[in-house]
Amino acid sequence: MADSCPLITLTTDFGWRDSYVAQMKGVILSIDPNGRITDLSHDIARHDITEGALFLAGALPFFPPGTINVAVVDPGVGSSRNPIVASLGDQYLVCPDNGLLTLVARELKIKAIHIIENKDYMRGEISATFHGRDIFAPAAAHLANGVPLESFGPKSDDYVTLDIGEPSSSSKNHVDGVVIHVDRFGNSITNIRPRNLQNREAGTIRCGPCEMEGIKRTYADVPRGKEVALYGSSGFLEIAVNTGNAADIFGLRPGTRVQVNLT
Amino acid sequence: MADSCPLITLTTDFGWRDSYVAQMKGVILSIDPNGRITDLSHDIARHDITEGALFLAGALPFFPPGTINVAVVDPGVGSSRNPIVASLGDQYLVCPDNGLLTLVARELKIKAIHIIENKDYMRGEISATFHGRDIFAPAAAHLANGVPLESFGPKSDDYVTLDIGEPSSSSKNHVDGVVIHVDRFGNSITNIRPRNLQNREAGTIRCGPCEMEGIKRTYADVPRGKEVALYGSSGFLEIAVNTGNAADIFGLRPGTRVQVNLT
Amino acid sequence: MADSCPLITLTTDFGWRDSYVAQMKGVILSIDPNGRITDLSHDIARHDITEGALFLAGALPFFPPGTINVAVVDPGVGSSRNPIVASLGDQYLVCPDNGLLTLVARELKIKAIHIIENKDYMRGEISATFHGRDIFAPAAAHLANGVPLESFGPKSDDYVTLDIGEPSSSSKNHVDGVVIHVDRFGNSITNIRPRNLQNREAGTIRCGPCEMEGIKRTYADVPRGKEVALYGSSGFLEIAVNTGNAADIFGLRPGTRVQVNLT
Repeated sequence: MADSCPLITLTTDFGWRDSYVAQMKGVILSIDPNGRITDLSHDIARHDITEGALFLAGALPFFPPGTINVAVVDPGVGSSRNPIVASLGDQYLVCPDNGLLTLVARELKIKAIHIIENKDYMRGEISATFHGRDIFAPAAAHLANGVPLESFGPKSDDYVTLDIGEPSSSSKNHVDGVVIHVDRFGNSITNIRPRNLQNREAGTIRCGPCEMEGIKRTYADVPRGKEVALYGSSGFLEIAVNTGNAADIFGLRPGTRVQVNLT
Repeated sequence: MADSCPLITLTTDFGWRDSYVAQMKGVILSIDPNGRITDLSHDIARHDITEGALFLAGALPFFPPGTINVAVVDPGVGSSRNPIVASLGDQYLVCPDNGLLTLVARELKIKAIHIIENKDYMRGEISATFHGRDIFAPAAAHLANGVPLESFGPKSDDYVTLDIGEPSSSSKNHVDGVVIHVDRFGNSITNIRPRNLQNREAGTIRCGPCEMEGIKRTYADVPRGKEVALYGSSGFLEIAVNTGNAADIFGLRPGTRVQVNLT
Repeated sequence: MADSCPLITLTTDFGWRDSYVAQMKGVILSIDPNGRITDLSHDIARHDITEGALFLAGALPFFPPGTINVAVVDPGVGSSRNPIVASLGDQYLVCPDNGLLTLVARELKIKAIHIIENKDYMRGEISATFHGRDIFAPAAAHLANGVPLESFGPKSDDYVTLDIGEPSSSSKNHVDGVVIHVDRFGNSITNIRPRNLQNREAGTIRCGPCEMEGIKRTYADVPRGKEVALYGSSGFLEIAVNTGNAADIFGLRPGTRVQVNLT
């Protein structure tokens, strides 16, 4: 690892059709010609900071020490939100301080956050509408070149967090959660994790019009076309249909309530 | 070539919006920090093993010796289908044994197939729903690090094949085939290849409501907006419209019949 | 920079679903096994040379010296248009001569254009429908391997240009332009740049049903949901809605007229 160039990952809501992602790549490779850039996603829903925060929490824990991650979902670009560079786990994250850190901070311990203020590490001319290119991409490339965190600007003791609810249990007999994300397959991922069941077993699970008995191991544990509740690959309870699209079939979407009865 | 790191290609039906592809990349780069990962596609239609098989047959023959290809279109994840690693041509393919090998095996000779059973080369904890991350990505990275095929598990003498029909000729005067894929441009690719014409010339070609005379060389051999039959870049007969979308205009789709009269 | 392998960028209208992009990557890496390939976009609108030309003009100026760019938006493949390799700025561009150079040539000075005729630098068999794989990808890989421009074929003194209008000012009191591109966010980018205002101030700006006063600095300078005119990150006047989709809300599209009154 010592000899290899740092890895720089990109996560944005820019899509591939416009040249915004390309411009960021060009800026990074102009500052760090050996930069190894990997696309994580440019298909985060537009301006959807919650989806961006979920994505980062799902993806970053799998990357090796020293990885420099850039995340730009930035509806407030040009307003007062701060650009920041954070060290978390053994990695770095360069992003606007608008809530994107909320969930990944539960997975990787945040060690330090610095506000990017030093113009030496920005592009010469800063547009008011594209800090991804003019502030975040250059910061990542300078980090890859060995610039220390402290050089970017003053330390920040806090960061903006989104209000993504934890499941509640108003009764001892059930846990109440919500769908927080629907993936490409229509699997509807909730905010309920095994620890929320307090060492008890799941009985009936309700989510929108679905009613299922118990938590299964995998999709194929039910017949094709049948609904199933299981812990998905990120450890959250998800509602799926074996080889079908649960969200489409049952009208599930972020915010749809889910209730797990405890036996 | 000797000094460069092995190339690892990724082909999935995961899309870019969820963090599944990113998780696979993180797992690969954690095991093989110098891994050179190239995205082939993450837009294979969901759960569509046939489309995945066609894609691999179209793409892999162009890659250099030593390339390690990972393909995950895996509706049966967590069920009894085997995870395998195959050597084919001078390359490798890591995938579920669910038919993905069917068509690429006609292009690149399969030399050996091993079932992935050795837990040393899997992630510590195997989810029941995401073997792309927990089995296939680690296997590819360990292959890149030099682990020999035999170490992954027992040899398999067979593999699952899809029933993708060859064209038939019930009469000596025509060949009957079907559309097997519609590409982004609406070009409708059939299962008919030059050898199916038995050294005779094509006369009238019928596909859905289209009727064309003879096989042309390129799209621009007919006026704009006109239908044309030609051998596409993969060597299959395709029905296209010059600068138009043949599938939309004529309602062509996988399964639509095509008949070539022989003169 | 001296020691690193040349960077090869890809811009196409092929999408990710078919294996065309993968085939190009395989061809490049078979000729230049150490090639560093970066995807810029494969989502250029099908056959839309104007969109491709805008993309290249937006993206290429940010890339470092020595970058080899491949651009394939090629509705005339197989007809008489020439395949070319151009040196522009300190970079290279390999593409069909069909207008793709029009706008990037205003950003990066064109130094030489050669027509690709030398079959030594093409694939052995040239399909009539996929020069991206058979001519452009190999040319880029051979350039990366050090083949000089002159070896590809004869010099060309001219290149095809698209008719993309400059804004006009029939009256001294206003500038008339058009929307030339709508980005993923619905921001509608016009062909008007600061220099077109002849050192005067913008008063009322009209575009479709929108009427705005003056040019702002950033989206957040107006309330959420309100329309705003500003200079976007590429230096063109754009019509946007703060956290909304201006094109959808107001029916703006390429060709929609915009008028800036000068005070």
